[in-house]
Amino acid sequence: MENVGYYNGKFGAIEEMTVPMNDRVHFFGDGVYDATCSRNHVIYLIDEHIDRFFNSAGLLKIQLPFSKAELKKILQEMVDKADAKDLFVYWQVTRGTAPRNHAFPNVKPNLWITVTPMEFHDLKKRVALTTMEDTRYLHCNIKTLNLLPSVMAAQKAAEENCFETVFHRGDIVTECAHSNVSILKNGVLKTHPNDHYILPGVAKNHLIMACKKLQIPVDETLYPMEELRTADEIIVTSSSNFCLVADTLEGKPVGGKAPELITALQEVLMKEFSDYCGE
Amino acid sequence: MENVGYYNGKFGAIEEMTVPMNDRVHFFGDGVYDATCSRNHVIYLIDEHIDRFFNSAGLLKIQLPFSKAELKKILQEMVDKADAKDLFVYWQVTRGTAPRNHAFPNVKPNLWITVTPMEFHDLKKRVALTTMEDTRYLHCNIKTLNLLPSVMAAQKAAEENCFETVFHRGDIVTECAHSNVSILKNGVLKTHPNDHYILPGVAKNHLIMACKKLQIPVDETLYPMEELRTADEIIVTSSSNFCLVADTLEGKPVGGKAPELITALQEVLMKEFSDYCGE
Repeated sequence: MENVGYYNGKFGAIEEMTVPMNDRVHFFGDGVYDATCSRNHVIYLIDEHIDRFFNSAGLLKIQLPFSKAELKKILQEMVDKADAKDLFVYWQVTRGTAPRNHAFPNVKPNLWITVTPMEFHDLKKRVALTTMEDTRYLHCNIKTLNLLPSVMAAQKAAEENCFETVFHRGDIVTECAHSNVSILKNGVLKTHPNDHYILPGVAKNHLIMACKKLQIPVDETLYPMEELRTADEIIVTSSSNFCLVADTLEGKPVGGKAPELITALQEVLMKEFSDYCGE
Repeated sequence: MENVGYYNGKFGAIEEMTVPMNDRVHFFGDGVYDATCSRNHVIYLIDEHIDRFFNSAGLLKIQLPFSKAELKKILQEMVDKADAKDLFVYWQVTRGTAPRNHAFPNVKPNLWITVTPMEFHDLKKRVALTTMEDTRYLHCNIKTLNLLPSVMAAQKAAEENCFETVFHRGDIVTECAHSNVSILKNGVLKTHPNDHYILPGVAKNHLIMACKKLQIPVDETLYPMEELRTADEIIVTSSSNFCLVADTLEGKPVGGKAPELITALQEVLMKEFSDYCGE
């Protein structure tokens, strides 16, 4: 199949799949998701993504009606139905199907999966970034379906021909619309600590692990916009783009002062990917 | 019909309606809504609700593919199909149907409507309130489908046998999970000003108009939790509950010190409703 959509046991081409009008996602965005890529039908870092997914669900008191092993099995089955070598593997759970009412209904959550062909960004091509005030709620650690501020930020990036929008809460850099952001300065990687202001990115964690492997010190403390603007390098990480590097921020040149560290980090991260999924 | 669901021109019983998997509401909660009640198939304050709906859509750059008059006509048609005397009339627009990608797709938005039987709360029965820190985003003036914090707050109320949860941002009272909150103190109505921290409630505006009619001064400035706790009366307003009054807050007695003002306000508001919709 070219792509696969799944909803509570039924599957088919995404364009042909439908869901009940009373799914609570329609009225409240009441659900959580996770996503990663697969190559050669091997789902990359699946256990870490499933762990985070269960954590997100737990924080919203969504009681998942399946085990981690069962979810992993269903995801693998759907990935195996898709043709392409490289796939974007996305899944979500919504709190259930019930007449609209804010408080929780006593029903079983719904499991959704989509598997779609994807192309990886060329890591050697540097990207443009823009910025925006971070006006999101204080639950950014939970990967929920309440993503309107990220939609608006991604649209700003698109309109400015940028790859991503970097959020800052007041003067403090947090993360991007759908990626984490980190900087290199004087040989140190600096990145926002994991708290309720950012998503605990799996790719960010692997960037940190790559730094440790290469003996690059890691500083997980708050940093202001000025440090972003004057960074030696700005790194954008996500589960489908690993480790991208910026060359402009708000239309002005940035980074480019530690290309050898970037190359070393990208090599570690891409070797990790090919060791896991094959070439 | 007992209830009516509508999606882009198709309609039927809500339980039988389905929507395409790629509707953007599924991945981002990417849409806005509005809602009111109807009696005798007259949709209460429909123009004010449609105005607010168009304003919400505009703030998110959702270009509505219909005029206010066209929307009003479709809503009336759906309400006319439903049997009950009193109905909850809900509608939303989502940004469209397209493969998941944060930035806006170039597609037409989707119109959804649900019409369901409802019962009004007895205004003479006082309600219990609980409280919660307001951790929502800074766009609470837009009636979006990103309602998870309201879901969690409403669930807290349900678990504590309360009618609503009052949000406070730090020490400042903002609004409730799905209502506005106002207080009476020394003959003055105090309520949070309309800004990005609260929804500009239609029922709240009508409460303010009722105050003006009764020569009750209105003070739309920020007020702290202590003023809520020591208020003469706490009033909770929403488009389906007009003007409810609290008798407990966090399990402790509140209000009850200006029942004559409450009676006068409720009389004005209920007369307005029956003048508009009939008995």
